[in-house]
Amino acid sequence: MSTTHAEAAIAHPASNPFISFLRRPINWFLLFIPITVALEHVHGIPAPVLFFSAALAIVPIAATIVASTEQLSTRTGDAIGGLLNATFGNAPELIIALVALKAGLLDMVRASLAGAILANLLMALGVAFLLGGLRFKEQRFNPAATRAYSTMMFVAAVSMTVPSAFNRAFATQAGPIREEKMLNIGIAVLLLVAYGLYLLFSLKTHPHAFASVESDGGGGHDLEEHWSVARAVVTLVLASLGAAWMSEILVGAAEGTGQALGMSQVFIGIVFVAIVGGAAESGSAIAMGRKNKMDLSVGIALGSCIQIALFVAPVLVLASYFLAPKPLELAFGRAEIGSLFMAVLCGALVCGDGQSNWYKGIQLLTVYAIIALMFYFMPAAT
Amino acid sequence: MSTTHAEAAIAHPASNPFISFLRRPINWFLLFIPITVALEHVHGIPAPVLFFSAALAIVPIAATIVASTEQLSTRTGDAIGGLLNATFGNAPELIIALVALKAGLLDMVRASLAGAILANLLMALGVAFLLGGLRFKEQRFNPAATRAYSTMMFVAAVSMTVPSAFNRAFATQAGPIREEKMLNIGIAVLLLVAYGLYLLFSLKTHPHAFASVESDGGGGHDLEEHWSVARAVVTLVLASLGAAWMSEILVGAAEGTGQALGMSQVFIGIVFVAIVGGAAESGSAIAMGRKNKMDLSVGIALGSCIQIALFVAPVLVLASYFLAPKPLELAFGRAEIGSLFMAVLCGALVCGDGQSNWYKGIQLLTVYAIIALMFYFMPAAT
Amino acid sequence: MSTTHAEAAIAHPASNPFISFLRRPINWFLLFIPITVALEHVHGIPAPVLFFSAALAIVPIAATIVASTEQLSTRTGDAIGGLLNATFGNAPELIIALVALKAGLLDMVRASLAGAILANLLMALGVAFLLGGLRFKEQRFNPAATRAYSTMMFVAAVSMTVPSAFNRAFATQAGPIREEKMLNIGIAVLLLVAYGLYLLFSLKTHPHAFASVESDGGGGHDLEEHWSVARAVVTLVLASLGAAWMSEILVGAAEGTGQALGMSQVFIGIVFVAIVGGAAESGSAIAMGRKNKMDLSVGIALGSCIQIALFVAPVLVLASYFLAPKPLELAFGRAEIGSLFMAVLCGALVCGDGQSNWYKGIQLLTVYAIIALMFYFMPAAT
Repeated sequence: MSTTHAEAAIAHPASNPFISFLRRPINWFLLFIPITVALEHVHGIPAPVLFFSAALAIVPIAATIVASTEQLSTRTGDAIGGLLNATFGNAPELIIALVALKAGLLDMVRASLAGAILANLLMALGVAFLLGGLRFKEQRFNPAATRAYSTMMFVAAVSMTVPSAFNRAFATQAGPIREEKMLNIGIAVLLLVAYGLYLLFSLKTHPHAFASVESDGGGGHDLEEHWSVARAVVTLVLASLGAAWMSEILVGAAEGTGQALGMSQVFIGIVFVAIVGGAAESGSAIAMGRKNKMDLSVGIALGSCIQIALFVAPVLVLASYFLAPKPLELAFGRAEIGSLFMAVLCGALVCGDGQSNWYKGIQLLTVYAIIALMFYFMPAAT
Repeated sequence: MSTTHAEAAIAHPASNPFISFLRRPINWFLLFIPITVALEHVHGIPAPVLFFSAALAIVPIAATIVASTEQLSTRTGDAIGGLLNATFGNAPELIIALVALKAGLLDMVRASLAGAILANLLMALGVAFLLGGLRFKEQRFNPAATRAYSTMMFVAAVSMTVPSAFNRAFATQAGPIREEKMLNIGIAVLLLVAYGLYLLFSLKTHPHAFASVESDGGGGHDLEEHWSVARAVVTLVLASLGAAWMSEILVGAAEGTGQALGMSQVFIGIVFVAIVGGAAESGSAIAMGRKNKMDLSVGIALGSCIQIALFVAPVLVLASYFLAPKPLELAFGRAEIGSLFMAVLCGALVCGDGQSNWYKGIQLLTVYAIIALMFYFMPAAT
Repeated sequence: MSTTHAEAAIAHPASNPFISFLRRPINWFLLFIPITVALEHVHGIPAPVLFFSAALAIVPIAATIVASTEQLSTRTGDAIGGLLNATFGNAPELIIALVALKAGLLDMVRASLAGAILANLLMALGVAFLLGGLRFKEQRFNPAATRAYSTMMFVAAVSMTVPSAFNRAFATQAGPIREEKMLNIGIAVLLLVAYGLYLLFSLKTHPHAFASVESDGGGGHDLEEHWSVARAVVTLVLASLGAAWMSEILVGAAEGTGQALGMSQVFIGIVFVAIVGGAAESGSAIAMGRKNKMDLSVGIALGSCIQIALFVAPVLVLASYFLAPKPLELAFGRAEIGSLFMAVLCGALVCGDGQSNWYKGIQLLTVYAIIALMFYFMPAAT
């Protein structure tokens, strides 16, 4: 969606879909799909090369997933369209995490969940405020919607803190105790119910409170072209398969990349994997910020955080009982939980008044940089 | 008070006080007093039966205490009336806690204090927002008063965190060190002074900032009937004695109930005892929410939290030196302190803009459910 | 500056600078300089006497530093004047901390940094709100500026929490690990960059958002007298040397004072040293509060906190590599970090609506008193 919107204003609606496809620079990155596949068969290729090649391939695929979801949602009416957007909006993150889950890399799954929230809340929003603020002295957005998002984020942070603290206090050498598994399942179910009611609230009973976000999700007015339902569905399926394929290569190369670059698994997960998975929304939030559409910008960045915490995370917990070698607990480390809470409170303070300027962007980016530095220097042992 | 208000609008002022008494459904629960007393003498009665029978008996007694306090306060003028309400408003919680204190069940006292705050802040307010929001799309209340409450709650949370952290860091096997006792006494005195000044502030120098809450406390306008001072005093004394009697049975059966139902003492205290003690105010806050009197609703729920933290808690600390087998320290566990902080911040975020809707109720209830789940699954050992 | 402003309204501009000098009661405290020097040579003088004599001598010196900085800044135009104020405004704290750093008293340096923030945010602002509120029922200030300050304070708290948590988790018996030193240097550089951009923001791109604070810093309108640049520079240099001299005596006597009075080093640092270093700004913030100039009052108190966290602290970290026997890590204890976070959140809650009254002062002072009690009773071992 990132480029769809960013380009919509300047691109000339081409009659030939292929030409219009090539006109969008992001699609050139699709070339990294064959490159990655080829590289995978080169013997002795360094892991970081494979990792970053797969990462670059995922970015346009993620954008394509988001774009085809949007096309589908314009064909289905507001409520179902909103639901589609809300469900598939974070499909890239979900796909990467499912692949890592299946591979049993639970630490990376957790790190990429926490990292995705940090990346959206601090980095994407920080860059959007900074670049928007350099163009416009003072930018405004709907503070009521932001407050609703902040509270949801806080609820989400609580829902991650409680099982994490539980794990630290009670997990034994042999792993988490039985009660912890039940607590995790209970919280996952609660979050999915809360998320379902949140969709009801934002799409049905109080859409006006989120008006501008809605006009982004459901409105196809600024879409450059209109796809048929068949094309949208086929694209969505193909892109999802492609994302899964590239994710497997990405996740497979992650360990070797960490060793080669002297970075811990957690750092790789919390910074690189998270940024790759969320690149489409981040790009979109930043583009909206530069165009002074702050309501859209804030809505995309914070809405994405909420989806990850209240939809992707509990789905992964429940899916782990079917897919993963062992169940996923929401047992984040102290550093991850601390970072999440600091990010959520910082976001609430910064966005609370419905105004932004370039220095608010710097504040968010400073917090992100401090947190990233911490994870970079953190010894792998813990 | 719960029903007093709720019924005032519909009940026909009866000339016969006995008939009007029977008309209020809550008073039928008074039948649980003789039932509880009878059950206590049945040999081999299961503890949970006795526990819940005593709990059901306490609910109407608590309502009676609140109602007679209100009657008294209408006879005494605004300032003294406000003082009476502020002092006896949480009499049920205080009585239950004093009984548990005397029995040396310090963990239960602490759990019921923390639980009473959680129940008021998250459950009562959550249900009030939810039920109110289902009837009215958007409800509004005075954000300035709410902010004053939020800050008081934050001060209260700090005052509970500091001695708890101190205890975790310095208490030895032999119990708390001498400095911790002095710290507890010092903080208790500070809190009582702060509470006294809070009454001065809210009743004398800035009553306008709390106007609607005041009109609830001091105003007998919507009281169904007017009692003589003698009747109010006698009722208050009898109800308090009854509350103490039922509390002893409740507290005595708590341990057996926990064992029989597989629940820890802390869970019993933080959920059941807390809800029983605060049922009167909770009911009142919810009833006001449904009648769209949100200022009253928020004022009752948050005011009750403040009273517990700044008045009931320090009184219990000081009283423990005279009543209890050993002094009560405000040494809450990590889970309790963490829950309190999350509840206070969540309350501040949710209520900060002076608006509520049904989904805000869901948010508060979700946090309450997550916290309750945590305490339910928490192994008793800790 | 404290008295400069406070007296400006009442003092008659004297033609004789010496007379006008003696008219200000604070300058009589300068007599404590010779007293302190004399006491230092008395054999067997109790350490507390020397400590408090040096402390009383520092107060007027600090006021002189602030006053001569202000005089200089009126001669240099708004931007450079603002920069001068921002750089030398916390010179007393910086000088005391540098002296303690050189003496290798790293715990005292950290305690005085944390204490300076607590003293400004809770004590100075609390007294200003209380005394102002006793005179004026309701006082108002610019909530946008306060929100910017609160966010900066939050960023600062994050920047102190991260290395402290890192230290607790990874430091070995032999001291901090190599990664921790690099993390500290990285964060120090980040903070100085953020502070530089903050000056750019508040002095150049968005001065209007801080208008009233600016008119305090740059405006010489209410200065009683106008000094020549030479006089201002000479005074500034002499006062800084005097501050360094007295600080050495203060720091040298701190250990003996703690032992004599039964107080820990941390308590001495966090309460006494911090109050002495910040007395000038605190006095100024309080005087402005009493004169109902709340924007100035809040700006001085919160601006000073930000300077300490984002300028003084990183400068000390970097300076420690040249001056101190071993590098300074921002490794605060749990109690200090917890207090900082509670203070920052409390400040954000209390000031967030741009209104103050006497009870808000009581709330801030209660939190300060609870924290001070905790440090007083905390065993020295930890």
